[in-house]
Amino acid sequence: MSSHACDVLVVGGGVIGLTAAWRALEAGASVVVLDPSPGDGATHAAAGMLAPVMEAGFGEEAQARLGTASLALWPAFAEALERAAGLPAGAVGLETAGTLALAYDGDDLVELRRTLALHRELGLASAEITPAEARRREPGVGARVAGAAWVPGDHQVDPRAVHAALAAAAARATLVPRAAVSLTWADGAVVGALDGTGTTYTAGTVVLAAGHASASLYAGAPTRAVPGTTLRLDAAADRSPAVVVRGTVQGRPVYAVPRRVRPDGRRELVVGATSDERDDDHLTRAGDVFALLRDVRALLPELDDAVLLEAVTRSRPASPDNAPLLGWAADGLCLATGHYRNGILLTPLTAAAVDEALGGALSGANGRPEVRAAVEAAARYADPRRFADADTTAPRTAPTTERGGTA
Amino acid sequence: MSSHACDVLVVGGGVIGLTAAWRALEAGASVVVLDPSPGDGATHAAAGMLAPVMEAGFGEEAQARLGTASLALWPAFAEALERAAGLPAGAVGLETAGTLALAYDGDDLVELRRTLALHRELGLASAEITPAEARRREPGVGARVAGAAWVPGDHQVDPRAVHAALAAAAARATLVPRAAVSLTWADGAVVGALDGTGTTYTAGTVVLAAGHASASLYAGAPTRAVPGTTLRLDAAADRSPAVVVRGTVQGRPVYAVPRRVRPDGRRELVVGATSDERDDDHLTRAGDVFALLRDVRALLPELDDAVLLEAVTRSRPASPDNAPLLGWAADGLCLATGHYRNGILLTPLTAAAVDEALGGALSGANGRPEVRAAVEAAARYADPRRFADADTTAPRTAPTTERGGTA
Repeated sequence: MSSHACDVLVVGGGVIGLTAAWRALEAGASVVVLDPSPGDGATHAAAGMLAPVMEAGFGEEAQARLGTASLALWPAFAEALERAAGLPAGAVGLETAGTLALAYDGDDLVELRRTLALHRELGLASAEITPAEARRREPGVGARVAGAAWVPGDHQVDPRAVHAALAAAAARATLVPRAAVSLTWADGAVVGALDGTGTTYTAGTVVLAAGHASASLYAGAPTRAVPGTTLRLDAAADRSPAVVVRGTVQGRPVYAVPRRVRPDGRRELVVGATSDERDDDHLTRAGDVFALLRDVRALLPELDDAVLLEAVTRSRPASPDNAPLLGWAADGLCLATGHYRNGILLTPLTAAAVDEALGGALSGANGRPEVRAAVEAAARYADPRRFADADTTAPRTAPTTERGGTA
Repeated sequence: MSSHACDVLVVGGGVIGLTAAWRALEAGASVVVLDPSPGDGATHAAAGMLAPVMEAGFGEEAQARLGTASLALWPAFAEALERAAGLPAGAVGLETAGTLALAYDGDDLVELRRTLALHRELGLASAEITPAEARRREPGVGARVAGAAWVPGDHQVDPRAVHAALAAAAARATLVPRAAVSLTWADGAVVGALDGTGTTYTAGTVVLAAGHASASLYAGAPTRAVPGTTLRLDAAADRSPAVVVRGTVQGRPVYAVPRRVRPDGRRELVVGATSDERDDDHLTRAGDVFALLRDVRALLPELDDAVLLEAVTRSRPASPDNAPLLGWAADGLCLATGHYRNGILLTPLTAAAVDEALGGALSGANGRPEVRAAVEAAARYADPRRFADADTTAPRTAPTTERGGTA
């Protein structure tokens, strides 16, 4: 039974976990990341839409504000990340061209107009355009589209490129390719974790970023798995949309997120996403692939000729209220999980929350009211009775890098 | 520049090429097989239906007879192959449970009844049954099926298992993982081949079994690529059909071929097949996957819950008249290509043709009129002007193992 000691142990090596690892390193901490296959969770399936506007649902105004705040942080975050990773500007694929929203039939258009009215209430920019105007922007838009809107504020980034950049930026962290099986507690505080081989990891701070698996490690992070399937297509650039296209087809949402045109004149795009409430099994169902192709070809018929490269199914981590869990939940335990469908969008806000928790600083994001509000809500599912012998309110602002590791 | 010498050089290591290699070894020849990735052509995508009855199209009576003759050879062929490969009986997955044919709508039923009438003319067994009877045989048959038939004579085998067994049976052959780029000729006779590295192969007989690529090596084998896509699904056994189901959905053919139930209670099945006339590129189109799933779920709706394991696109080799090219086409050149959609069905007949060509014998199949007729037609696309200095008619029955190799 070997043991490791560090300042910060990050459980989970997806985009969120590696963001926490990078920020902890920048704050001067020694960092260990535990993940049996980093980046092979929700990160692997994510399309990378940065869409606080079109994702704003009724009754989710707080979520929309959080998303909008994080979107505003993306340009500076991308620049800092690319610099830290030693990558050229633009390497993570941040694109700010806006999004074309489509409604397939009359009922879908009624729904789209309700969403546009909500945008006006929330002060988010969007405008209805005619199907003919939609086709001028994107010639591949199908003949049977009932209505459309232009949403300038919804952007995109490439999640796999973001993950690769984070891995480079956090290269000084020790990556252990094993899964944590439990957190270790002492006197009501989290002091480390245990992996499946019995190896112990002692840390001043544990950042729990294990996605939907977080719930099995800490009951105060009651995340559930919401599996979704995305497809990767490879299309001739002149048959692929140039901007993000999302729409509703007879009530079912679907999107196509195009990447940059490659030197060979082709363009990869991500089509998504289904949403199931079942166990996380990484298995793609025939019916889900059928539904995605049926709906995306209703909006963009020319994608029939695109090459199907991949069908990927991974689980989003959802909290009971669908809002993320970010910040101190117990002494020694910082949460960075529960991002549900918005993990990529909320990555810069997560970085700011980790900075705030660890006492660091990034691009003036700290001190923003949205970040502070998110961080202060992190313990909302923690049950103080479970940790009766601990003071669960005090340590929320303790910069854990001062705690040091114990071997 | 190295060189190899052997009695028989087989160009192509799919099911057909390895069948030729195995038969040549059994006839006492030394054998070299040239293929950069054996079994990764049409073999890799094939579903393994042994369906001379349902594949019998109007005007293809000769083809139906050839297929029926080969189907009759399958049980003895499978037994001999499994024995030669050192595998247990049943290893190649030969199943003789029959096939359920379904018609989705009224027009499809009219078409099915025309096919059943053709069967009566050709003396092939099939009988119309009601949709209720179809559902008694296969509870997963969808509610909207207009008609059905039971076809006892159409069976199946597992093409990848057949290929693995052939590789074991032909293990004494030398496999060179490179592609032939040209045949070598001397005095109007084929005397070997050349690979892309400039290595020469000298052989008494060259068996051309390169599938759709055969045309680029010999103009008298004018095969074209007909790419098709098949899907592999993994279903709970009680939601998968137990026998082969094939049908027509608004004019489009589709089939589902179930393998044996695995110990974990699940069953793999192959769904196919699209048919395109385009270049062979091994790329699966989104529209083809969509069409296969749409049509198979119209007949078997419960397959929506099946896991999509694979989408594979490979090219069938079609001759101008869609009939295979089997036997002597020039001095030293034996063809075994052009099997189109029926490569797996026609494998035992191909073995018999190779036996006949090389002077061997298998299970009394030689001397059958269908085999002899197929072999005698092998040179039908050979242009005697191209080989003006050769006698292209004489060598058809020359047992080439007597020719020996020259280094």
